[in-house]
Amino acid sequence: MALEVFHKDETLQMRRKLIGQSCRLFFSHDPVKIMRARGQYLYDENGMQYLDCISNVQHVGHCHPSITQAAAAQMDLLYSNTRFLHDNIVLYANRLAATLPKKLCVFYFVNSGSEANDLALRLARQYTRHQDVIVLDYAYHGHLTSLIDISPYKFRKLEGQKEWVHVAPLPDTYHGIYREDHLDPGQAYADTVKSLIEEAHKKGRKISSFFAESLPSVGGQIIFPTGYCKRVAESVHEAGGVYVADEIQTGFGRVGSHFWAFQLQGEDFCPDIVTVGKPMGNGHPIACVATTEEIADAFTANGVEYFNTFGGNPVSCAIGLAVLDVIEKEDLRGNAVRVGGHLIQLLLQLQTKHPLVGDVRGVGLFIGMELVKDRVSRKPATEEAAHLVRRLKEERIVISTDGPWDSVIKFKPPMCFSIEDAERVSTLPDRYTQIQHPPCEAHKVEDAVPLDVAKEV
Amino acid sequence: MALEVFHKDETLQMRRKLIGQSCRLFFSHDPVKIMRARGQYLYDENGMQYLDCISNVQHVGHCHPSITQAAAAQMDLLYSNTRFLHDNIVLYANRLAATLPKKLCVFYFVNSGSEANDLALRLARQYTRHQDVIVLDYAYHGHLTSLIDISPYKFRKLEGQKEWVHVAPLPDTYHGIYREDHLDPGQAYADTVKSLIEEAHKKGRKISSFFAESLPSVGGQIIFPTGYCKRVAESVHEAGGVYVADEIQTGFGRVGSHFWAFQLQGEDFCPDIVTVGKPMGNGHPIACVATTEEIADAFTANGVEYFNTFGGNPVSCAIGLAVLDVIEKEDLRGNAVRVGGHLIQLLLQLQTKHPLVGDVRGVGLFIGMELVKDRVSRKPATEEAAHLVRRLKEERIVISTDGPWDSVIKFKPPMCFSIEDAERVSTLPDRYTQIQHPPCEAHKVEDAVPLDVAKEV
Repeated sequence: MALEVFHKDETLQMRRKLIGQSCRLFFSHDPVKIMRARGQYLYDENGMQYLDCISNVQHVGHCHPSITQAAAAQMDLLYSNTRFLHDNIVLYANRLAATLPKKLCVFYFVNSGSEANDLALRLARQYTRHQDVIVLDYAYHGHLTSLIDISPYKFRKLEGQKEWVHVAPLPDTYHGIYREDHLDPGQAYADTVKSLIEEAHKKGRKISSFFAESLPSVGGQIIFPTGYCKRVAESVHEAGGVYVADEIQTGFGRVGSHFWAFQLQGEDFCPDIVTVGKPMGNGHPIACVATTEEIADAFTANGVEYFNTFGGNPVSCAIGLAVLDVIEKEDLRGNAVRVGGHLIQLLLQLQTKHPLVGDVRGVGLFIGMELVKDRVSRKPATEEAAHLVRRLKEERIVISTDGPWDSVIKFKPPMCFSIEDAERVSTLPDRYTQIQHPPCEAHKVEDAVPLDVAKEV
Repeated sequence: MALEVFHKDETLQMRRKLIGQSCRLFFSHDPVKIMRARGQYLYDENGMQYLDCISNVQHVGHCHPSITQAAAAQMDLLYSNTRFLHDNIVLYANRLAATLPKKLCVFYFVNSGSEANDLALRLARQYTRHQDVIVLDYAYHGHLTSLIDISPYKFRKLEGQKEWVHVAPLPDTYHGIYREDHLDPGQAYADTVKSLIEEAHKKGRKISSFFAESLPSVGGQIIFPTGYCKRVAESVHEAGGVYVADEIQTGFGRVGSHFWAFQLQGEDFCPDIVTVGKPMGNGHPIACVATTEEIADAFTANGVEYFNTFGGNPVSCAIGLAVLDVIEKEDLRGNAVRVGGHLIQLLLQLQTKHPLVGDVRGVGLFIGMELVKDRVSRKPATEEAAHLVRRLKEERIVISTDGPWDSVIKFKPPMCFSIEDAERVSTLPDRYTQIQHPPCEAHKVEDAVPLDVAKEV
């Protein structure tokens, strides 16, 4: 059992004083202090266990001993930078290349998804010699200056939309302009991107890239309609731009059937740049950009070095390799298919019982359950979702919401999540009957914070 | 002995294929493959030892067992994010606060110096509501889109200077507009910043910040003249801006006498924002921004969360704490004073013997030896410096150059560098006599690459 240094109240008090308050806590009205974690379970200062439904970063399970061992062994040998030749970086790049379409064969290692997306932006602009970027509505691509500019979820609350940013409708067939009854929503939503490009061209602007998460997360756990990405890529290529697939939340087998979420769109679709991050190091800061030889060559041709002090160091790569090993050895993709499939079935059963459950969608262990005031208007049940999150916390289940109205209960647990965990989180029907009543007003204001917070995990 | 997976040639071949060629190698015409390291020594695939004079990131020595142990112990307990309460982040922030002036008491933890500088830019702009930035000539502040914009060393080779960036002369009393014979170079150089602000105001522009490394590194291991920072800060504050001290290369006791290099400017100078990185985790990706309550409050007031997925996690903070412990327990600041002082004396002795050595400057274990064609014109001896680096590599000493003309031999070794190491690197006079002859032409083109490369370490 890990020992507390400070009593929880004191930790909280010191945190409020020493750490910028823009860095928020889960459940800010009553945060949890977590001392240790293993697999899909978190333990607080009293040893109470919480089921973790949202830590997608701790991909193969919290504190997996294989990862710790790989890190410690390499830390004892060498933790230097990539200006010295080392086997780990090429071993790791080679392993990643084997998971990707052949044309994505050049890698840049960095320290965070944000660093990866910023570099993707630089690569796209250098290659195309264009500046403008198309993004999806409600998207979030990172905390850096350049990425807030391409994140409608952020820039709408801050300095607003730059003239070089173009926002396409989120291809959400539950809430969006084309819905599940449309004959070809993939084509229809792709056409909105095409129109946006035409409008931009009329203003004399030039498109460097289309940036999108392969499954929009902050947007509300959205699954793209069939054919969407391929058709978008065609329009973007025609405009001289590149397709950037942000796989920071969705990669490394989370969708189960495929290693990367963009592969759900079929073998005839391949992005030009893929950015990866969060789950890559199981908690360790590592991220990466994969791209084509042509794009990498254009970046090299400017004659300016790209040096990332920590990116691709032997320890980060040893950890990355160990994560890949565990995904394979423990068949975590198979587990995502089985457990994710079962969880979706359980949530669909809840939907048959509770009018509050408007939609259940997902693939593998990337699942959303959208709550609505009623199924005809599809008006988001934001307060009810907040109430559910709070009730589940009382049951020691850590979960959060997503989507433009914080009305989507999101599941993206460590990949070792079990059938029993799925049943635990979805078969306490009293929670779901209770949430049909309006939540206590006293909690509403406080909850607005942790819910907003939870969206970027 | 660590085992090679691939023969060196194969590693090199795979690296050329799989890793973006903008990521360069040291000694690109004959790179070294390093398998393990300990303290200030690197070992190649044949077990040959190299003395490391430049790895400032591995601050307390390569692969220090205390750091590995702290990392492994915490990795086994918890490697989650900062939305859960945890003691390590407040313990670490508290320890850092004790090293800084009282007003720098709010911390944001991130993964790299680049992320820290980007956040500093966001903080400065949010607080001041101004956009423009003043930077020093030849400065380098990071690899992100926003930081290339404020790095003359980079933007001059890329898209050029933005209208919101203002470049002040580097206060270099050896090469600059005011030299060592000036009565008050601190005031004179500070006045150049004042004039720059006045010019910007005439154009209707508003200054958010003055950004500078506390000891400009890429600029050529420059020591600011007395009084410079305080006077610059006065002008910047008068313009409604803030002073950002980039301590990414210079912090954590490298200068010996003080914990932070900005403290060399006296107790009456305090920056408004300090960014730290490289040595903080001894190789592990961790960095930080320290600022005032007022600036942090302005950032919080925008109502938008700042979430950094990995920043401030319990493992990164445990490593950070272990690094601070080793600095104290092993008296590495005292060592920097003693060994750095001795190394400067040895280099000054070389200067008395060799006209090639134009200037020796430094503090603690941050030292530069500038080579010149002759001491009157002070024309940079770029080729000679490249030749010296190559010759020292043959002697299994890893060193590199810096400065606008790559003519400054830079020393910023792990802080456990010893008196014997200092003597080894500076008392083989044949090297210095040889370098007075023009170097072999065949090597010149190739060397341009590793030397450029080495500047951002």
